Amino acid sequence: MAIKMIGVGIAGYGYWGPNLARNFTNQPDCSLVAIYDINPTRIAVAKKHYPHAEITADYSRLLANDSVRAILISTPVSTHYALAKQALLAGKDVLIEKPMTQTVPEAAELIRIAKENKCILAIDHTFIFTGAVQKIKQIVDSGELGSILYVDSVRVNLGLFQKDINVISDLAPHDLSIVSHVFGKKPVMVQAMGGCHTQNGLESMAYLHVEYDYNLIAHFHLSWVSPVKIRRTMIAGDRKMLVYDDLESSEKVKVYDRSVSIRSDDSEMIYNTIIDYRIGDMVAPWINQREALDAEAEHFLSCVRNRARPMIDGSAGMEVVRIIEAAKTSLKNNGSRVAVEYGE
Amino acid sequence: MAIKMIGVGIAGYGYWGPNLARNFTNQPDCSLVAIYDINPTRIAVAKKHYPHAEITADYSRLLANDSVRAILISTPVSTHYALAKQALLAGKDVLIEKPMTQTVPEAAELIRIAKENKCILAIDHTFIFTGAVQKIKQIVDSGELGSILYVDSVRVNLGLFQKDINVISDLAPHDLSIVSHVFGKKPVMVQAMGGCHTQNGLESMAYLHVEYDYNLIAHFHLSWVSPVKIRRTMIAGDRKMLVYDDLESSEKVKVYDRSVSIRSDDSEMIYNTIIDYRIGDMVAPWINQREALDAEAEHFLSCVRNRARPMIDGSAGMEVVRIIEAAKTSLKNNGSRVAVEYGE
Amino acid sequence: MAIKMIGVGIAGYGYWGPNLARNFTNQPDCSLVAIYDINPTRIAVAKKHYPHAEITADYSRLLANDSVRAILISTPVSTHYALAKQALLAGKDVLIEKPMTQTVPEAAELIRIAKENKCILAIDHTFIFTGAVQKIKQIVDSGELGSILYVDSVRVNLGLFQKDINVISDLAPHDLSIVSHVFGKKPVMVQAMGGCHTQNGLESMAYLHVEYDYNLIAHFHLSWVSPVKIRRTMIAGDRKMLVYDDLESSEKVKVYDRSVSIRSDDSEMIYNTIIDYRIGDMVAPWINQREALDAEAEHFLSCVRNRARPMIDGSAGMEVVRIIEAAKTSLKNNGSRVAVEYGE
Amino acid sequence: MAIKMIGVGIAGYGYWGPNLARNFTNQPDCSLVAIYDINPTRIAVAKKHYPHAEITADYSRLLANDSVRAILISTPVSTHYALAKQALLAGKDVLIEKPMTQTVPEAAELIRIAKENKCILAIDHTFIFTGAVQKIKQIVDSGELGSILYVDSVRVNLGLFQKDINVISDLAPHDLSIVSHVFGKKPVMVQAMGGCHTQNGLESMAYLHVEYDYNLIAHFHLSWVSPVKIRRTMIAGDRKMLVYDDLESSEKVKVYDRSVSIRSDDSEMIYNTIIDYRIGDMVAPWINQREALDAEAEHFLSCVRNRARPMIDGSAGMEVVRIIEAAKTSLKNNGSRVAVEYGE
Repeated sequence: MAIKMIGVGIAGYGYWGPNLARNFTNQPDCSLVAIYDINPTRIAVAKKHYPHAEITADYSRLLANDSVRAILISTPVSTHYALAKQALLAGKDVLIEKPMTQTVPEAAELIRIAKENKCILAIDHTFIFTGAVQKIKQIVDSGELGSILYVDSVRVNLGLFQKDINVISDLAPHDLSIVSHVFGKKPVMVQAMGGCHTQNGLESMAYLHVEYDYNLIAHFHLSWVSPVKIRRTMIAGDRKMLVYDDLESSEKVKVYDRSVSIRSDDSEMIYNTIIDYRIGDMVAPWINQREALDAEAEHFLSCVRNRARPMIDGSAGMEVVRIIEAAKTSLKNNGSRVAVEYGE
Repeated sequence: MAIKMIGVGIAGYGYWGPNLARNFTNQPDCSLVAIYDINPTRIAVAKKHYPHAEITADYSRLLANDSVRAILISTPVSTHYALAKQALLAGKDVLIEKPMTQTVPEAAELIRIAKENKCILAIDHTFIFTGAVQKIKQIVDSGELGSILYVDSVRVNLGLFQKDINVISDLAPHDLSIVSHVFGKKPVMVQAMGGCHTQNGLESMAYLHVEYDYNLIAHFHLSWVSPVKIRRTMIAGDRKMLVYDDLESSEKVKVYDRSVSIRSDDSEMIYNTIIDYRIGDMVAPWINQREALDAEAEHFLSCVRNRARPMIDGSAGMEVVRIIEAAKTSLKNNGSRVAVEYGE
Repeated sequence: MAIKMIGVGIAGYGYWGPNLARNFTNQPDCSLVAIYDINPTRIAVAKKHYPHAEITADYSRLLANDSVRAILISTPVSTHYALAKQALLAGKDVLIEKPMTQTVPEAAELIRIAKENKCILAIDHTFIFTGAVQKIKQIVDSGELGSILYVDSVRVNLGLFQKDINVISDLAPHDLSIVSHVFGKKPVMVQAMGGCHTQNGLESMAYLHVEYDYNLIAHFHLSWVSPVKIRRTMIAGDRKMLVYDDLESSEKVKVYDRSVSIRSDDSEMIYNTIIDYRIGDMVAPWINQREALDAEAEHFLSCVRNRARPMIDGSAGMEVVRIIEAAKTSLKNNGSRVAVEYGE
Repeated sequence: MAIKMIGVGIAGYGYWGPNLARNFTNQPDCSLVAIYDINPTRIAVAKKHYPHAEITADYSRLLANDSVRAILISTPVSTHYALAKQALLAGKDVLIEKPMTQTVPEAAELIRIAKENKCILAIDHTFIFTGAVQKIKQIVDSGELGSILYVDSVRVNLGLFQKDINVISDLAPHDLSIVSHVFGKKPVMVQAMGGCHTQNGLESMAYLHVEYDYNLIAHFHLSWVSPVKIRRTMIAGDRKMLVYDDLESSEKVKVYDRSVSIRSDDSEMIYNTIIDYRIGDMVAPWINQREALDAEAEHFLSCVRNRARPMIDGSAGMEVVRIIEAAKTSLKNNGSRVAVEYGE
């Protein structure tokens, strides 16, 4: 018996939509049934690329189309909530581009509706599906790094300015989702400082400081106004340390057998603190080069087929929104400490 | 008539003292007269290297020695104030290793005593004398970068842990003195967040966020617990951007002809904001490779000879202490904003 | 009046064919009419990607198809001559993937047939159409570098082994075409040394040393058995020097204002030779990031439309074949010097 | 009983002499007794640095001085033979800077005299004593790399031009001694191609191709006219591959678990050759950072004390001279193959 094809519709054929289209089309058990966009130029491009699909500026056509089993939402953030809600209410499974929504209540409502309608709700935190992040999680889970001293992440480049969200909403979801996934700890306190260089009041550079439970500290430098592009995350453990440089072509993850061990003897003299440095080999483990979105598409379709919980579900998406919301509050209050609320 | 030799004494022959000794000895008009240290091992080493100098564990010998025109202090920070005060009261000119003192009042007192005794008081912010920082100042002064959007600085490596000061006191003076010297702006507000990984309560990694007057924002990542060594400062201007990487052997300073110019038209619609990206050439200007401490020694001796104000004087040193003091307060208060006090 | 569409057929849908298909399809005045391949798997893939084109295992279908104005040949090298000859005799314009043919006489014959049949004959030396190579040519043409001391080129990586040609035939055409295009000088003498690590007798690493007229020396390191990928060309002039690193994402071309000028005084003493070093700024000029094959497709179609001589014509292709042929002779004779023959 | 001090004399206090002086002085069982140089400026510098040693322009003073047990020769190459010969005839142990001599017969004679006079004769191939080269030898000896496919070495930078020797004599000894030491194979055939950019007829860039016995091929790119400094050696094995980058501060040696294994099935069809690529982890082993010349000085003094054969003896030095001599012959004959003679 042949495997039944899963039909998907795409909402938003701008920057990310074509990547979704290409990767879902490549899946053996999936067909791209319809594409929605309101921009005539993008509609024309979609028609050229996918002449057999229904290309429409009317979202309700996707909702009404029985061949559309799942809707992939890659529109501006401000529309995520409304489009996802309609899709879920129409019984469609949904994959939403990051960040999931603009507010925590919106995210919570989508989770509730998905549950009530028994729909799959997944959030597109693509980096989780890279070979690099999977390897990092495996290394952290193994305990090889020892206790984590801190995480430092830099994601900066020149542009692209987003017009409706600040740089934290735009870039931080990548790093926040990586830290959440790799360490599995809850954020408890957030501080954010930033700078705005346009008249729209949206920060184009920011520093985000997050304290998670169990003493995990992570710091994020996010910028659209850096002359050089940097994508680097450092995880300092008390036994080994790891650097993840996403711009390295072959050695993205490096594990340094380096540590500082501080021993204190019994005396009270501060000068008797003994500090040992240990510097050993560096290993850059082999990393699976598979395109992340290809793995993610396969996983999402498998969840749709088997009615399984996605690895990155609504609550994972909501946690990122929660931190961003706290960061916005901190930004407004000059970098004050803001507790992450778990009111619901 | 021959130029009269200037005799110098060195207090502290640990890590930095030998560098002072070598560079001051190399100056044509300078002789190393005496070295003070309390550690017998270091005294033995000093005797081997400089058999003709007086090597002593008794600081008063330097004060009493009429051949000692100036004293170079490179002892632990906690002793700077006392040693410098005695030297100034004895009428000696003084060069103090960074940071100048542990507290602002101590720094203020040294400035006052130096003034009263007509002694030269200089602080050893060595980086100011590098060809790279001089070139950066020249570029910033020229206005070539346009308005400065922000400064981001990373100075991290594995060890060396200091036992009496935290990572901010140890590493930040380099960067704080560079920013002060290059931009000539006053710090007004400080936030600091950090982590301590020893039992002595001293932070081994920290983030320091400083707001200067005229809207200059600078952020510093300082760490003794990073597996990789990074020494990179980025200055983002609205016309050009500059990256200073001190670990690059030949191209330490790179100027990127890149900018984002945001125009706003008259309408109120946010979508009408127009953002232009401009990406042009990158230039790595030729940098003078002269050893910084050699240039600094020449400058200090010239000030001693001509009774001139040093480029990095007591007030420059005190400003760094002021920021560090504010940072300590912020650290104690969980990263709260702390105004930089100018009470005196 | 609308511009008439140019129909193209592609022979060979293996590694490079899909790139030709995509880029020619993207041209506004071009339609992909037919694709030929003998491999059933590749035929299936071509059908999926271009359902509207004629996909065939019978090359004569392309020759007989009046909608096919030009044939793009991207089959194994051993078939280039026969397929191109048939295409030209059928009156089609032809673009051949590098290297043009296996032998010089084959190349010469194709040039003759193209001329007799008034067909456009172009060779796909893609790198010539990169922004980097165009910028390099502009810099060399300006005389900025002074006299060229030598050119050193490294193109090495792990795999992909070709089964019918050696590493020189596979990789050197890129570099040989760049050197020929940038300097416009004729090769006169070739030496080649290599190593073979399979039983098929084809070299998997080789060094190629070419002397051009006017004293230009170029050396090429080519390898399929290098653990790291390097794509770097150095052009040392006596006034400035240039490094082209194709793996750099943003600064592919760097021009160093460095030189060594050697003056000799009148005496006969060798020790009186005076050598001056000059080290100035480094400039990485802005490079056009347009995809090379897009520019090449536009250029080829323009030649087809206007019956103009392509920038990389048959004789440019033949010159590369000529050097490769001489290199094979040198390899057989243990690296002996082989004059490049211009018998025709 | 105290260890008897070994007195050394240094001949030549130019570029390298001060390094020898510093490192031998640092050895616990060694005293620097005398320094010889003919240049008044260098004599003055030597007197300032080592006031207690005898500084002389008369070489016979070193020969006559009974406190001088060994002479370290760091004069221009053309004088090595004469100075070393006198020293050996005077019964002194000798360490000669690379290259040992200008000709093979000179080297052979020194070896003979040393043997007859029971003197220690060592050649200063400093790189052999680096932690990196020792680690590489250990890795190669372990068989971890499998069969060696080839060695490629690049040692290029801008200047310093030598006035009495070409770039091969100046730079190649480093790499030739490394290859000889690591692999322990005899050179059998040499080819060299170069370019001369001064009027003294000495090559300032060259390619050296050496075939060793047991099919080891090594290729060396040597240049004084490169805008960028490169110090990289690649050793491609059929199981693993190694890259040694001497300019890397922390990871000088990288071992790539990458290989290409070519299997041939029984058929005669070339297309049946099966090529497997294997890409695994990369490991940068910890490297001992001890200064090479310190280890070398200790080793030489130990040989002097114990009358033991040095790791790098006269025959190791002569082998490098042998290859350089063959390379000069090849250069004169336009890169012809020159057999390495073992006539003596």
